[in-house]
Amino acid sequence: MSQRVTLGLVQMKSAASIAANLARAESRVQSLAHRGAQIIALPELFLTPYFCQTKDKKFFGLAEPIPGPSVRALQDIARRNKVVLTTSVFEKGERGKCYNTAVVLDADGKLRGTYRKMHIPDDPKNYYGEAYYFTPGNLGVCVFKTRFAKIATLICWDQWFPEGARIAAAKGAQIIIYPTAIGYQLKAKSGINEAEHEAWQVIQRAHAIANTVFVAACNRVGLEHRLRFWGTSFVTDPYGRVLAQAGTEKEEDVLVPCDLEVIDQMREDWPFLAARRMKVEG
Amino acid sequence: MSQRVTLGLVQMKSAASIAANLARAESRVQSLAHRGAQIIALPELFLTPYFCQTKDKKFFGLAEPIPGPSVRALQDIARRNKVVLTTSVFEKGERGKCYNTAVVLDADGKLRGTYRKMHIPDDPKNYYGEAYYFTPGNLGVCVFKTRFAKIATLICWDQWFPEGARIAAAKGAQIIIYPTAIGYQLKAKSGINEAEHEAWQVIQRAHAIANTVFVAACNRVGLEHRLRFWGTSFVTDPYGRVLAQAGTEKEEDVLVPCDLEVIDQMREDWPFLAARRMKVEG
Repeated sequence: MSQRVTLGLVQMKSAASIAANLARAESRVQSLAHRGAQIIALPELFLTPYFCQTKDKKFFGLAEPIPGPSVRALQDIARRNKVVLTTSVFEKGERGKCYNTAVVLDADGKLRGTYRKMHIPDDPKNYYGEAYYFTPGNLGVCVFKTRFAKIATLICWDQWFPEGARIAAAKGAQIIIYPTAIGYQLKAKSGINEAEHEAWQVIQRAHAIANTVFVAACNRVGLEHRLRFWGTSFVTDPYGRVLAQAGTEKEEDVLVPCDLEVIDQMREDWPFLAARRMKVEG
Repeated sequence: MSQRVTLGLVQMKSAASIAANLARAESRVQSLAHRGAQIIALPELFLTPYFCQTKDKKFFGLAEPIPGPSVRALQDIARRNKVVLTTSVFEKGERGKCYNTAVVLDADGKLRGTYRKMHIPDDPKNYYGEAYYFTPGNLGVCVFKTRFAKIATLICWDQWFPEGARIAAAKGAQIIIYPTAIGYQLKAKSGINEAEHEAWQVIQRAHAIANTVFVAACNRVGLEHRLRFWGTSFVTDPYGRVLAQAGTEKEEDVLVPCDLEVIDQMREDWPFLAARRMKVEG
């Protein structure tokens, strides 16, 4: 396994139809792969508009088993472009339970595994009314050995919880990827959106520092209903230095070469994982 | 308990003698108290030079029981100025074991409790050769109800571990205070000092965000042997916004009014503590 890997982030808007979003994703993945990307992330639930701002039974019709038609289409995209691909999808699980589930598709198109989002926002203002749709994940935090690196995928609200990143790193992740859908709330009090936006990046940089891993966040962008997704898809190195970052306003591809050897070098000076005195479990 | 509290940080250099450092601390505490400070922090082990850059048995002679002469002097300073006071001291503990121990002295001078540093750097380059002197703490993370707020004191290297801050907040801390002694290494590779300095603040801002608490760091400043302590003592609110910050070059007093009501307000939007799915223990 080479120690150099190039990450690609597809910061995108989601159109109304799954077919359109898959086609859009494929062309963006193809372009990033041509430029050298090996591991590519798409935003959280990118297959559809972010329906969680409304509670409506009809949206359960969007859920699919894994693998289902959409995941199979994504597997084909990964295989055709020889890239590792990750995003989250609306999973129709066992006994009618639905999950917000990350899929990790290896560069040969194989489904390497899934992670079901554990921290589900139950937002009374329904900016992120996810608890109506998603059961909290029951698979724990998973690390996947892909062709190019050992990665963990956590999802959006998991970003605020240091425990998930800690477990991922302790299980061997070199890169933690957060597909996400987060934005400015149209009716927030003055200053709150700016504070949340900044905090969102700070805490993910801190996950990289605390665990000496690379962290990547891939976000939606643009207005949907009462949320203006703030983009800012970025990659940080294990010092928490932002290596590359998209803007807040438009669709962008982010391409970031990462040298994973930095992880072992840093851990000589900062053996945080080895020196922990407190247990995290979950 | 009022919801408004004013923090004071004494960013200082340590002179050779304990008596001189106590006198200096007293005059700074007095000045901050006159300006309204209610909870005041002094840097880690401020009673002496930072002896951990050298391994020498003679330094064990600096350790004192708690309470011993120095802690009693600090209790008097707290009582005379009607402030909560916290710092860390070199504790001579049971059966010859020594600890790097935070003391929390209430505004009436009472010793409210102690916390023994749990994460002890064992630095082969001896910038922070603490493992030679200090046994890892055996008291767990403690929260102290003082006259002005519920505070937890963690110490320096603990800063890099999200677990400690998490436990402190889960036990009810409103403010986490880190007395610290950290600086630029005179022989570090280019760029490393800057990266570490920035990471140091980012991760503490993230502790505030993850736990919706205030975080304060009080550091040494100035050159001692091979470390140039970088000051930058600061206070961050629960959004990770730095409310006030000292410079990197000289002694400074930092005075920061904090509105603790923000904590409960924020937890309505961001109920991270309540929504955790993973356990932290220690």
